[in-house]
Amino acid sequence: MNSAYRLFGKKLFKTKGLLVASSQVLKNTVPTSDCDVLVTFPMNTDTSTLMWLLDRLKSRTPELTVHVRHHSNTKGSVFHITATHERLLKGAEELAIRKPIKEEYGGGMKEFSYEDQECFAGVMDEEHFFASQERQSIINHMLNNLRAEKGEQLGNVKFLEGQAIVPLLESKNVISQVFPLHNHDDLVDLRLTWVQAFFRKQPLGKICDYFGVKIAMYFAYLGHYTMALSVPAFLGMVVWFFQGLDEVNDDVWAVVFALFNAFWATLYLEHWKRRSSELAYEWGTMDKKDELLEDPRPLFTGDLVQSPVTEKMDFYYPAWKRNLFRYFVSWPIICLCLCVVFAVMLLIFELQEWVNILVISETIPGFCRFFPKILLAVSIGVLDEVYKKIATWLNEKENYRMEESYENHLIIKLVLFQFVNSFLSLFYIAFYLQDMDRLSEQLAAILITRQVIGNIKESLLPYILWKARLYKVGYEMMSDKSPLTQEQRRKSVNVEAWITDKKNEKQDEEIDQNLDSSSDSESEKRRRTLSQELSLTQAEVESAMKKYEGTFEDYLEMFIQFGYVTLFSSAFPLAALCAIVNNIIEIRSDAFKLCVNHQRPFGQRVENIGTWQDALEVMGVVAVMVNCGLIFVSGQIQRMFTHSTALSALVIIVILEHVILALKFLIAYAIPDVPETIAQKKAKLEYLRREALKKLESQIGQSNSPDVKERIIHHQKSKVDAMCQVGKPNIIP
Amino acid sequence: MNSAYRLFGKKLFKTKGLLVASSQVLKNTVPTSDCDVLVTFPMNTDTSTLMWLLDRLKSRTPELTVHVRHHSNTKGSVFHITATHERLLKGAEELAIRKPIKEEYGGGMKEFSYEDQECFAGVMDEEHFFASQERQSIINHMLNNLRAEKGEQLGNVKFLEGQAIVPLLESKNVISQVFPLHNHDDLVDLRLTWVQAFFRKQPLGKICDYFGVKIAMYFAYLGHYTMALSVPAFLGMVVWFFQGLDEVNDDVWAVVFALFNAFWATLYLEHWKRRSSELAYEWGTMDKKDELLEDPRPLFTGDLVQSPVTEKMDFYYPAWKRNLFRYFVSWPIICLCLCVVFAVMLLIFELQEWVNILVISETIPGFCRFFPKILLAVSIGVLDEVYKKIATWLNEKENYRMEESYENHLIIKLVLFQFVNSFLSLFYIAFYLQDMDRLSEQLAAILITRQVIGNIKESLLPYILWKARLYKVGYEMMSDKSPLTQEQRRKSVNVEAWITDKKNEKQDEEIDQNLDSSSDSESEKRRRTLSQELSLTQAEVESAMKKYEGTFEDYLEMFIQFGYVTLFSSAFPLAALCAIVNNIIEIRSDAFKLCVNHQRPFGQRVENIGTWQDALEVMGVVAVMVNCGLIFVSGQIQRMFTHSTALSALVIIVILEHVILALKFLIAYAIPDVPETIAQKKAKLEYLRREALKKLESQIGQSNSPDVKERIIHHQKSKVDAMCQVGKPNIIP
Repeated sequence: MNSAYRLFGKKLFKTKGLLVASSQVLKNTVPTSDCDVLVTFPMNTDTSTLMWLLDRLKSRTPELTVHVRHHSNTKGSVFHITATHERLLKGAEELAIRKPIKEEYGGGMKEFSYEDQECFAGVMDEEHFFASQERQSIINHMLNNLRAEKGEQLGNVKFLEGQAIVPLLESKNVISQVFPLHNHDDLVDLRLTWVQAFFRKQPLGKICDYFGVKIAMYFAYLGHYTMALSVPAFLGMVVWFFQGLDEVNDDVWAVVFALFNAFWATLYLEHWKRRSSELAYEWGTMDKKDELLEDPRPLFTGDLVQSPVTEKMDFYYPAWKRNLFRYFVSWPIICLCLCVVFAVMLLIFELQEWVNILVISETIPGFCRFFPKILLAVSIGVLDEVYKKIATWLNEKENYRMEESYENHLIIKLVLFQFVNSFLSLFYIAFYLQDMDRLSEQLAAILITRQVIGNIKESLLPYILWKARLYKVGYEMMSDKSPLTQEQRRKSVNVEAWITDKKNEKQDEEIDQNLDSSSDSESEKRRRTLSQELSLTQAEVESAMKKYEGTFEDYLEMFIQFGYVTLFSSAFPLAALCAIVNNIIEIRSDAFKLCVNHQRPFGQRVENIGTWQDALEVMGVVAVMVNCGLIFVSGQIQRMFTHSTALSALVIIVILEHVILALKFLIAYAIPDVPETIAQKKAKLEYLRREALKKLESQIGQSNSPDVKERIIHHQKSKVDAMCQVGKPNIIP
Repeated sequence: MNSAYRLFGKKLFKTKGLLVASSQVLKNTVPTSDCDVLVTFPMNTDTSTLMWLLDRLKSRTPELTVHVRHHSNTKGSVFHITATHERLLKGAEELAIRKPIKEEYGGGMKEFSYEDQECFAGVMDEEHFFASQERQSIINHMLNNLRAEKGEQLGNVKFLEGQAIVPLLESKNVISQVFPLHNHDDLVDLRLTWVQAFFRKQPLGKICDYFGVKIAMYFAYLGHYTMALSVPAFLGMVVWFFQGLDEVNDDVWAVVFALFNAFWATLYLEHWKRRSSELAYEWGTMDKKDELLEDPRPLFTGDLVQSPVTEKMDFYYPAWKRNLFRYFVSWPIICLCLCVVFAVMLLIFELQEWVNILVISETIPGFCRFFPKILLAVSIGVLDEVYKKIATWLNEKENYRMEESYENHLIIKLVLFQFVNSFLSLFYIAFYLQDMDRLSEQLAAILITRQVIGNIKESLLPYILWKARLYKVGYEMMSDKSPLTQEQRRKSVNVEAWITDKKNEKQDEEIDQNLDSSSDSESEKRRRTLSQELSLTQAEVESAMKKYEGTFEDYLEMFIQFGYVTLFSSAFPLAALCAIVNNIIEIRSDAFKLCVNHQRPFGQRVENIGTWQDALEVMGVVAVMVNCGLIFVSGQIQRMFTHSTALSALVIIVILEHVILALKFLIAYAIPDVPETIAQKKAKLEYLRREALKKLESQIGQSNSPDVKERIIHHQKSKVDAMCQVGKPNIIP
């Protein structure tokens, strides 16, 4: 997962110390004040480019405060961006950020309103009114709203009228990165209560506050899923324990366990839907604006026309164009790609079988059997890269208006490939070779290598590496190989690490080359750099950190794991147990990644886990089919009912499959997606809003003196506002 | 369907003239003014009962104007209920009825607000501001809101605190009926533009205005479905035409046609979803209140507790109690009943087969083969009655809060029975006897008898009967068998009809007995009644009409038909054509029923066709399975690919089935349920509302003089109100 350890071996101490050291660096660096978001540029960026962007920022988004800095480490220019409290308040209204109401106005949470700011608790406290994540979201929103005018151009980059400047420059690499700064205090707290608190409940509220709803939702899902796994893990252990006692029993148990898993998957997914709606309610994302009212994705383009919705000038891209492209270009290409992958993999499997036979007959030497395996690994690697590029490009071309639909459609495309990649070999063994023993072995091998070892690599190894590095640097300093002052020595651990990191960061390649060419020996280089870098700031350190690439990879890992557990559970009953062990580590190693060695991501608001829910549900349905197929292929029915022919066994299994699927859908239909309590809370808030309005209307109607009226309006307004905790602000003074 | 013609034969002229004559009666009767809704009582109701109810109506719903009348024809007392314009306006606000805004305030439709009534166009026009259906809905709402106090009792009927009095009395037969009066002008218009305009588009807007959204939605569905049928009807004709040319072709065509139907069903249902959301938008039911804020079903009971939502005293019935009953009482009983039906029908089918063999071998005489058929008809009739009672009772006990969920759950229960009842014989022939020729014959027979003849019975026969009756009565009068004055003669046609009807109406049984015992000959009786009835009012006539029992039967008929068309289409390709012919008549005969010889129903607001959509979608899925099963059973695959064994044919078919189902779900997933234009309109209205609020807030913030403020508020308010056409009223002055 983490590319940091690919070259583990000889180069251990020379490369990729990022994961370990940056946290340490962060701890001892000079905090960067007056800055929420960084915009960094490549090293050799022209001053004219900087000025061009700065001009536009100053003139079109005057609410932003921009300081230009030169980072001594990256040799690049950086914009330090922040905004005044006043401007942040206005932005909070635009983004409809929910804030607590003062007790005297009724308490509770309400979307912030600039006009009524005095109703909000702590609004005057510039330091603490907004959480750092909120400040950053507001500033990011403002940055994304810096729009191009007609015919503007910067170097080779031509802008369409109304296009978002910053995201486009970022996609063209004129801007290296846009990211928010970490908050040291919160981070320390999260490390204590989350990363290191291995068997404690995750502090979901804090995670949501610090990283935003999207990431919190992922961890909530991961925790919930891991808990749910304990049921099939336990039953799987029982089945595994009694396996091999006698053949008939084995068959019965395998069938029962497969059936059980089908229902477990349904119940678990339904339960998660309910849980996620609770979380969405708690985190205030349940009642989002209509999609057409949300800001479009910054890279969304189209004809600049008067929007039929807002009557402002807005990009419009007709649905039929998207559909035309989607159904007549995108999907045919995707299907073709999948077929190619399918064919290549099948060919290599066939080759493997053929080589195996040759090896057994001793026609060729034994080590030859590894060639097809290597070939498979290489071709999957290559195909993966190519496919990802094609899928992303096609998805870009489909030009979705919303970030969420863009992402969901990308997920579908990528997941299809990963499905083929992850499961084809198992399907091949199960249904083509029909070798159940080998299936069981293969599955166990995959689960243990891909999961357990993979996870140890992700978390245990970084820890050992970190310790080793500390020891080494300490040893070097003690043996006085480098002429550092005491003060310098204190910092050397961190800076050393930081430099080594930097060498392996893509975005710093140029700087690397620069350093490499100008320095002779490692110690020389270190000494030179150290003398420049004694005052390393937080901003400098974090801009050299890795970017968190989003939750996609993490969800994907869980999706594939869910597949192993449900699809082939009857072949390897311990799958769920392996998955649990893996996930307990996974939660903390993902947390480690976020809290220790990655740039902070911008918070994103989501209502649920999106397409992943659908993907998991489809997996649940496929699981029923695959398990029924396995039961047929392994001949369990034929053995259970002796005298039954293959035909009648197949008929029995097909009927069984249909009944299970029907029950699955019935269960999903019968369980409400939103729990009663949440439904009641939503209804109550709607009721309060309606009632408050009615009362207000009638009171105003009865009073005649303008003075009284005004006082009533004011009083009622605050009360009503306080009540309107869900939904849109809909009262005016 | 209509019990009016069961005794067709000797008694033709003596019985059941209701269907025909009431329309005529209605035309010539004295219109009842000052009355919107009638509450009728059985003939021998105590004056004390009337007084008890009247007292409560006067004291607890003073907004209603009640006149007590004695109907000379039914010999029962009747409450004529209406309300003043003022009261209706208030009720319109409670029911959130949408009314047009004056042009100067921005036009468009908005939910009525009593406070801002001056903004609504035509609000002063007491005669025409409300459509008759709206007046009646408001009054019905008020009637249902007449609640019992603690310990109240009327005769044997004990009330719980807060229980709705009128619906409970109606369910206990203390009140015979509560129904709204027809509007003669609108009715004449509807008859011209709808009932008689056979090949014209249905005037859905008018239907919606007169009968409410629920009934209009049914007719919209019926029309849409009939149009959609033209595609499989055409293809079916082509298949039918080329059938029998050669065997291989037949097989290919049958398979292709079955596949085509699977996709047609999906596309058609998706298209209807989009169409119905358009209609719901147009008719203002798209954006309903939260279920928990709607008024509960009048017969809903529970503990009277302070509602967690509204904080008023309200019935609360916990979901777990309902679920407990549902899953551990209701559904086991329902399943048991269905098993009994299943077993009984199968036994009779077996008996039939056995009898058939005996007849063929001439052991018993030929007419014996009809005995099992008769036995089947009788037992289905009995089982149907018993099952309906059980299902309704169970559904009542499940105690749903909302009318809609009550109905939806009843539909599910009843549909299951009808499914078994309608299709079991076909399944028996197809999969047990595996006799494809007989299946085809049986299907054709069912479609023609059940559909075409059934429909002729529903519409052509009543027309002929009506004409015959007119002729007969005219003949009698001409031959001077009755000593009527010219004036009386003019009316006799209608009154004659009315009396004959009355004899066969359940609710009038007692009166019937009365008349029967006191009269000697038919002509005597007629003369005596006529002299009493010369001044028959509209209210009197309509209270003797049949009650429209709701859309259930009509939807059921379409559901079963959809089943015949999709499930067994490959066995009888002309099914869709038969269905089309049937439906063209069905639309007008259902319209005839509503516009000519039934009491007017209260309007009901629905967002879509509810559970029927789900039922049809399930039928679409079952159709794929059944068609695949038919293909296997009829051996088409085995013949198409000679040399293929039954096992490999089954594998092919199972894979085919899975692929089709997967495609079906993909298509349904890919097509958005709400068309882009409607989504845009909804978004636009939400946007306008939000923007209007923002502007209003900022203008008020800037102005300081209370006078200016007030003017701005007033001006903006009207504008804002006008803009808020979707959703709740959410602006205050």
